[in-house]
Amino acid sequence: MSDHVTDDNIDQTIDFDELQSQSDETTFNEKSNESNHTEDEDIEEQQHFFDIINTFRYYKSFNMKKVQKRIDFVNTMTTAHQNLLENYSKHLTEVQTSILHNYEIIKVIIGDAAKIFRNHLFLKDNKKSSLTLKSEKDLDISRIDSILNQIVREWCHEGINERESCFVPILNTIEKYFPLVENRNQIRILVPGAGLGRLPFEIAKRGYSCQGNEFSLMMLFVANFILNKIDSIDVFTFYPWVSHFSNNLQSNHQILPIKFPDVNPATISKDVDFSMVAGSFIEIFNQQKNQFDCVVTCFFLDTAQNIVAYIETIWNILKTGGIWINFGPLLYHYADMTDCSIEPSYEIVREIIESFNFQFLEEKTNQICYYTRNPNSMVSYQYHSIFFVCRK
Amino acid sequence: MSDHVTDDNIDQTIDFDELQSQSDETTFNEKSNESNHTEDEDIEEQQHFFDIINTFRYYKSFNMKKVQKRIDFVNTMTTAHQNLLENYSKHLTEVQTSILHNYEIIKVIIGDAAKIFRNHLFLKDNKKSSLTLKSEKDLDISRIDSILNQIVREWCHEGINERESCFVPILNTIEKYFPLVENRNQIRILVPGAGLGRLPFEIAKRGYSCQGNEFSLMMLFVANFILNKIDSIDVFTFYPWVSHFSNNLQSNHQILPIKFPDVNPATISKDVDFSMVAGSFIEIFNQQKNQFDCVVTCFFLDTAQNIVAYIETIWNILKTGGIWINFGPLLYHYADMTDCSIEPSYEIVREIIESFNFQFLEEKTNQICYYTRNPNSMVSYQYHSIFFVCRK
Repeated sequence: MSDHVTDDNIDQTIDFDELQSQSDETTFNEKSNESNHTEDEDIEEQQHFFDIINTFRYYKSFNMKKVQKRIDFVNTMTTAHQNLLENYSKHLTEVQTSILHNYEIIKVIIGDAAKIFRNHLFLKDNKKSSLTLKSEKDLDISRIDSILNQIVREWCHEGINERESCFVPILNTIEKYFPLVENRNQIRILVPGAGLGRLPFEIAKRGYSCQGNEFSLMMLFVANFILNKIDSIDVFTFYPWVSHFSNNLQSNHQILPIKFPDVNPATISKDVDFSMVAGSFIEIFNQQKNQFDCVVTCFFLDTAQNIVAYIETIWNILKTGGIWINFGPLLYHYADMTDCSIEPSYEIVREIIESFNFQFLEEKTNQICYYTRNPNSMVSYQYHSIFFVCRK
Repeated sequence: MSDHVTDDNIDQTIDFDELQSQSDETTFNEKSNESNHTEDEDIEEQQHFFDIINTFRYYKSFNMKKVQKRIDFVNTMTTAHQNLLENYSKHLTEVQTSILHNYEIIKVIIGDAAKIFRNHLFLKDNKKSSLTLKSEKDLDISRIDSILNQIVREWCHEGINERESCFVPILNTIEKYFPLVENRNQIRILVPGAGLGRLPFEIAKRGYSCQGNEFSLMMLFVANFILNKIDSIDVFTFYPWVSHFSNNLQSNHQILPIKFPDVNPATISKDVDFSMVAGSFIEIFNQQKNQFDCVVTCFFLDTAQNIVAYIETIWNILKTGGIWINFGPLLYHYADMTDCSIEPSYEIVREIIESFNFQFLEEKTNQICYYTRNPNSMVSYQYHSIFFVCRK
């Protein structure tokens, strides 16, 4: 599965030896590292880190090839067809320019990721040699497009409708059940599936102490970059829809420039404990008890392979009387994968929640919302979400 | 790639030698066969026919295994979790029953497909021996789920909203531009991408002569079954959403029984020429000129690899003054495939249409509609379609 890469593929070398420690930043921890990892597990984790960095690095060559394939196909056509496609051909070169621009931002993100996730770097040389450099075809580079779309959802003005449909009901509910103003930072809130950190940021901005938890290293790299390296508004411009070849009304919708972030991420009060923890929700939290006043799950429950274990862990980590707020559909992530998974209906999920003695305080179905929607596209995935509030 | 299959996998043998010719039915032709095929092309076509039949035959074992995997996963859990999942386990056995029921209908469909597509059967024995029986993992069996969902869209009461949002504007437009009542059957209308035949059926039912064209043999098998073998309403019950494990509010939404057909398919007047032709739109029609009074494309343009060739072919086959009616988004089918494809925006498609000297008579964007939507699901793909009418 390993492969050689040329200079053309990999534009930037991250020098693992010259990294400096960071300070005055949102903490990014890996709690699962605190347990006793075996050497094999360490190597597996290093390999995953290495794969993600390489996935980002292949973005340029992968996407440039996709466009080149289209240019080559046009060149096989009759002259009459090529003439009719003159504007399309011009558009394809603009798509290439946008890809190159996105890649400049990606290089900054992965450069910083290698610095902050320093625990990954303390590899003895003999361990380093067991890591393999996977080829482009062995990495799912299309996932980076989802990350670019996720930046719009969480950190761009253009994502405001998505955030209002699910973050605002959650934030209002937190302030309803934890209305106190003084010592608000004593209220501890957990957000598993924190993505790029906007929801925990909004909670912390309102004065609550908040920990985000995220499994995806890709998400964590970008979250770290936004939360720790940016201290003003609209400093970056990127092209989040550049890989959306289909369903464009206008050609320029594919290469629409979008700015981020829409707020200054460096505005959390020093009194508030705001952190992100990397790793699996179950692995990190299943042995903890009575730790949080509130758990917020937003588009998260359906990332479970065994949703019963998620509900059990939420029950355990909440203090008695603690509040669980949920918003999202049940688009089970593992349903079509080779890994094992169960996908109970909401009817059954609800029964299981009640079996743990959670008390339903509020409950609404059919909450219309979108997830990383391209507002100009001729297709959008509309979710009819469930919102509920439970007390332990 | 070939594999042995056990009796457990394949429930029914189609006896190719005992087939009878059919009469008084909607004609299903393969026009591309009229050209001079090479022996290699014949074998390739036979292999494709054989693969599709086998894809249908593997439906049961493929889907039963998917459920069994979930049952096995539950069995690995703690007793406490298993007890909480008692209703889920019961539900999984009901899912299995629904799969078995769907398979009974599939057996009837493929039994009849082998009869009607008789041209596939005249293989010399030495050619037959070169056909390989592909294994389950080499066939895309999940496509059958799309076909079951397509039956709801086209031939069930539950699909009425989808049909009203796109078929009704098309049918009204046909009657607006071809309002005559006498000799209506002299008006020749072509529907490429005819799917399960409901749209050409509705056109023929209004008295116009109509030819459907469809590339997918899977679609054609089911279209043949419905149009030629059913002569009353609601005769079959099936479970179209049985493979939808995610996004169910209630467990019984996954195993909802639906009846088909909602109309009697055997009600086309004998005076009307109503037929379906199998094969690629370009291959069949690109050499024909001035054949049709009207071409209707509904969720079809984006099935093109080269949409310019589609537009050119539509221009050629229309009579001077003929009408082209289009409804659909631009969800280009080949965009993410290894085959070559171009995906111009509607802006560029429109320019190309005008370059062929088509005259736009009507044009609307943002026509909200759905395609094989499960009305109970917590997710739906919403299309913002384009509707236009052009004159040659």
